[in-house]
Amino acid sequence: MPIERIRYLPLRGKITDAVSAAQCIQDGTNLFISGFTAGYPKLIPQELARRARAGERFKINLFAGASTEDTVDGILAEAGVLAWRRPYMSDRIMREKINRGDIYFKDDHLSSLSEQVRAGNLGTADVAVVEAVCITEKGHLIPTMSVGNTPTYVREGRRIIIEISDLPIELQGLHDIFIPEDPPYRMPIPIYRAADRIGKPFIELDPNRVEAILFSREQDRYPIFHEPDEVSRRIAEQILDFVRHEIRKDRLSPTLPWQSGVGDVANAVLAGFLEDDFFQEIEIYSEVLQDSVLDLIDIGKVRAASGSSLTLSDKARRRFFNEIYRYREKIVLRPVEISNSPEVIRRLGVLAINTAIEVDIYGQVNSTHVMGTHLMNGIGGSGDFLRNGAVSFIVTPSTAKEGRISAIVPMVTHVDHSEHSVDVVVTENGLVDTRSLTPRQTAEQIIRRCAHPDYRDMLWDYFQRALKERGGHEPHVLEDAFFMHRRFMETGDMRPR
Amino acid sequence: MPIERIRYLPLRGKITDAVSAAQCIQDGTNLFISGFTAGYPKLIPQELARRARAGERFKINLFAGASTEDTVDGILAEAGVLAWRRPYMSDRIMREKINRGDIYFKDDHLSSLSEQVRAGNLGTADVAVVEAVCITEKGHLIPTMSVGNTPTYVREGRRIIIEISDLPIELQGLHDIFIPEDPPYRMPIPIYRAADRIGKPFIELDPNRVEAILFSREQDRYPIFHEPDEVSRRIAEQILDFVRHEIRKDRLSPTLPWQSGVGDVANAVLAGFLEDDFFQEIEIYSEVLQDSVLDLIDIGKVRAASGSSLTLSDKARRRFFNEIYRYREKIVLRPVEISNSPEVIRRLGVLAINTAIEVDIYGQVNSTHVMGTHLMNGIGGSGDFLRNGAVSFIVTPSTAKEGRISAIVPMVTHVDHSEHSVDVVVTENGLVDTRSLTPRQTAEQIIRRCAHPDYRDMLWDYFQRALKERGGHEPHVLEDAFFMHRRFMETGDMRPR
Ligand SMILES: CC(C)(COP(=O)(O)OP(=O)(O)OC[C@H]1O[C@@H](n2cnc3c(N)ncnc32)[C@H](O)[C@@H]1OP(=O)(O)O)[C@@H](O)C(=O)NCCC(=O)NCCS
Ligand SMILES: CC(C)(COP(=O)(O)OP(=O)(O)OC[C@H]1O[C@@H](n2cnc3c(N)ncnc32)[C@H](O)[C@@H]1OP(=O)(O)O)[C@@H](O)C(=O)NCCC(=O)NCCS
Repeated sequence: MPIERIRYLPLRGKITDAVSAAQCIQDGTNLFISGFTAGYPKLIPQELARRARAGERFKINLFAGASTEDTVDGILAEAGVLAWRRPYMSDRIMREKINRGDIYFKDDHLSSLSEQVRAGNLGTADVAVVEAVCITEKGHLIPTMSVGNTPTYVREGRRIIIEISDLPIELQGLHDIFIPEDPPYRMPIPIYRAADRIGKPFIELDPNRVEAILFSREQDRYPIFHEPDEVSRRIAEQILDFVRHEIRKDRLSPTLPWQSGVGDVANAVLAGFLEDDFFQEIEIYSEVLQDSVLDLIDIGKVRAASGSSLTLSDKARRRFFNEIYRYREKIVLRPVEISNSPEVIRRLGVLAINTAIEVDIYGQVNSTHVMGTHLMNGIGGSGDFLRNGAVSFIVTPSTAKEGRISAIVPMVTHVDHSEHSVDVVVTENGLVDTRSLTPRQTAEQIIRRCAHPDYRDMLWDYFQRALKERGGHEPHVLEDAFFMHRRFMETGDMRPR
Repeated sequence: MPIERIRYLPLRGKITDAVSAAQCIQDGTNLFISGFTAGYPKLIPQELARRARAGERFKINLFAGASTEDTVDGILAEAGVLAWRRPYMSDRIMREKINRGDIYFKDDHLSSLSEQVRAGNLGTADVAVVEAVCITEKGHLIPTMSVGNTPTYVREGRRIIIEISDLPIELQGLHDIFIPEDPPYRMPIPIYRAADRIGKPFIELDPNRVEAILFSREQDRYPIFHEPDEVSRRIAEQILDFVRHEIRKDRLSPTLPWQSGVGDVANAVLAGFLEDDFFQEIEIYSEVLQDSVLDLIDIGKVRAASGSSLTLSDKARRRFFNEIYRYREKIVLRPVEISNSPEVIRRLGVLAINTAIEVDIYGQVNSTHVMGTHLMNGIGGSGDFLRNGAVSFIVTPSTAKEGRISAIVPMVTHVDHSEHSVDVVVTENGLVDTRSLTPRQTAEQIIRRCAHPDYRDMLWDYFQRALKERGGHEPHVLEDAFFMHRRFMETGDMRPR
């Protein structure tokens, strides 16, 4: 019985439908929602889209934890009701509108948004809409498949709308909710191991600010993961080989936790552990936990997995829901300011693996802007992990678009992560540890080892020309630095005809 | 009597001269020295330069805390004995050789080098040479005007050479030495206020590894500070106005500590407090403490000042040495991995002010490479502070080279700090808080407010053209993004004739 999920009785009077609940959301509302690739509200966004389709003219500012797929970002972008959206998103329609300037977007490090909200830098938190599996006897919230910024949004939201999901109630106990203090008088975040629980298993809620409660049977959209292809497998293999070597040389401890970004390559790295005997009792201190984490737990290889969301394929979800009690012993979901905390990442010595759009010969990284201008998704947590990891890996297939684009370029067209923060660059062709190389040595190695054979000569020519014509610590021929991108824009291929 | 400065008697037998002490430094030696704009050894570098001039052929790899001026970097670079140099440096001759590729240089975040050394990533620490004011009864070292990476170099160094300086012995008690643990099993760095002392007032030393002790009367080179000019004063004024406003609006706490980078502008910001009544009981959590800090202490405005070195003009030094006991109550010098610790900077909520070479219309920052190719000094601690400050300011005069170069450009030629980590951009013309702006809005504001009037139209034209011809979240015309730099390289002026 859904009503039993509201165990705090005074709140049962707040049950209503989406139409009336959403009435408090009007033109100019700042809307703060749960959701971090999973765990976003569904009914209110649908209702807002419906109102727009029915002809109502209004614009809201939408703040989430991270991406919320087409179920929220897609339909709201399409409905044309968004003035602002922050932070990270990955929806196709929203992306197009952001790139046209129709939706305002500012790309924040995920670790820092909650703090900005608490400081009031994003304006008043007019309405918070959150998905939960239940409201406890004391009136607290149990979130669903993600935590993200929800604890702060619930604390700051003037009005709160709760969508009670029909996901298994056993999710209770999965989350660890801790809102850090704000400067100047604050204490350390007391996490010393990936598994440490430092907070409460629920989000504290002021019942007086609850505007409405809805019951929802809507599900998160399932991401589709592909079996690791040859490219991802090669990237994963090289990373594991490298770390194994560093451990044997006693330059890395064998018990450092791992972070692996979003997408197929990231999934493949963790999948690589499946067939590897060297690594045992793995700890994961990451952001988004994907299918591969469950696989590793099943074979007893994971000691602990910490993240801010659990984003599972349809199949993995069913497995997870059948045995939550078992996975719950290994998995902990935290607010993103904790999963991505620079302090904790650095303390634990995380091995951080993130995917780039393109990398240049000196190791500068573009994670966000295709051809320097068009936003792909956003920086997400990549900066949080890259800048603070014990070793930071940047991975990318050496080409995109069936080989017509080289992901290794003379100069990236946008920089999200500078060479100072990038340690190791990996493509399917090879791996370069830049930590003890000069920029010129890095260039030589990245061209030789990481670039795709089709592009090696062209990159080498550029580098030699820069050395001769300009020199300097990082030789570049500024007027030609983007010649490969220009060729692609003109001919649709970075290779000459 | 200098010999009394070696209070640990067994070590008195190690007193020798530079010629014999330096014999353990041979071709291929990894040499780790104290020094962080101040507090570097002088005799050994001079002896090495002498050997080179006398015709001996050898190359060493030199690692310091940060820059060591011409007294070390300059003479060793000139002598041609350096294979490698890490991290930050600021000497003219060394810079030239690095840019020619004659000296290998890798630009590390200052906070991370000690940890790399302990992990063994930089090779064995063959010889450590450190400046100290004395050796205590227990055989520990009291450093001089900086701490930098010295504690780790002394711990890791296989052979240690100590240069006993004749600076006042009262420096004892100024330093706070704490080497953090290394991952994965480490605890927080327990600093909760800028003034907190968490370590010992000396550097622990294994007397068995002491190779030689020298007495030195050589002094650090005095930096020359200029009285704040109109440009620096305007920059400082705007920052103080902005912070005052944010405090009044309750978006910032009035007690956040300040960091201010190196150089005249940085000095001017702190000088700005002298004539300001709003800010009282200031805390400084910075890297290099300069003259302005003493001035502020003298008028009772500073509650605490923490840094890794004290770099004072001739005049200020004399004042400091006369009353060390008084300044010592306010000032603490720490290892750079603590002064620049991302964990601590974030916890305290530091207001971070750093100088750029150039900034682009979207807020991307170049701190290191002139025209994208030629290294100026290095990233230093700017990334440590910028990436973790509660508010990160990037400051620069709007032009360089008598107006022939605009420091506001369409696209920076090298990126050290990405827009995601830069909050506020300030020139003498104006200030832009980018935290709630889209990239396009940021561009409009930076052009309008920060750029020099001579360059505004040219930047605006570029931005409009990029908007029209390319669009996207950050419009750029890649083939023209460096048109101003190219014009400068061709004509010596970014302005058209
Ligand atoms: C970089 C990023 C977009 C790669 O995503 P992915 O799913 O692993 O990689 P894909 O190869 O599928 O690339 C995604 C798209 O970018 C395109 N692309 C990749 N490299 C490209 C390049 N150099 N130039 C142009 N397009 C490129 C791909 O062709 C693909 O396009 P499509 O959607 O039209 O097929 C993604 O990892 C990301 O957003 N990263 C930033 C945030 C982050 O790192 N988060 C993790 C922190 S915990
Ligand atoms: C950026 C930095 C070089 C500016 O130094 P500064 O002493 O404040 O500034 P100056 O205006 O004197 O500039 C130094 C030189 O760079 C030149 N310069 C400045 N901007 C320039 C530009 N856009 N293009 C070309 N040259 C430029 C100046 O003309 C000057 O040259 P000169 O030595 O031939 O006179 C310096 O702050 C730095 O090295 N920063 C990086 C490290 C850092 O931030 N450390 C602090 C962290 S705690």
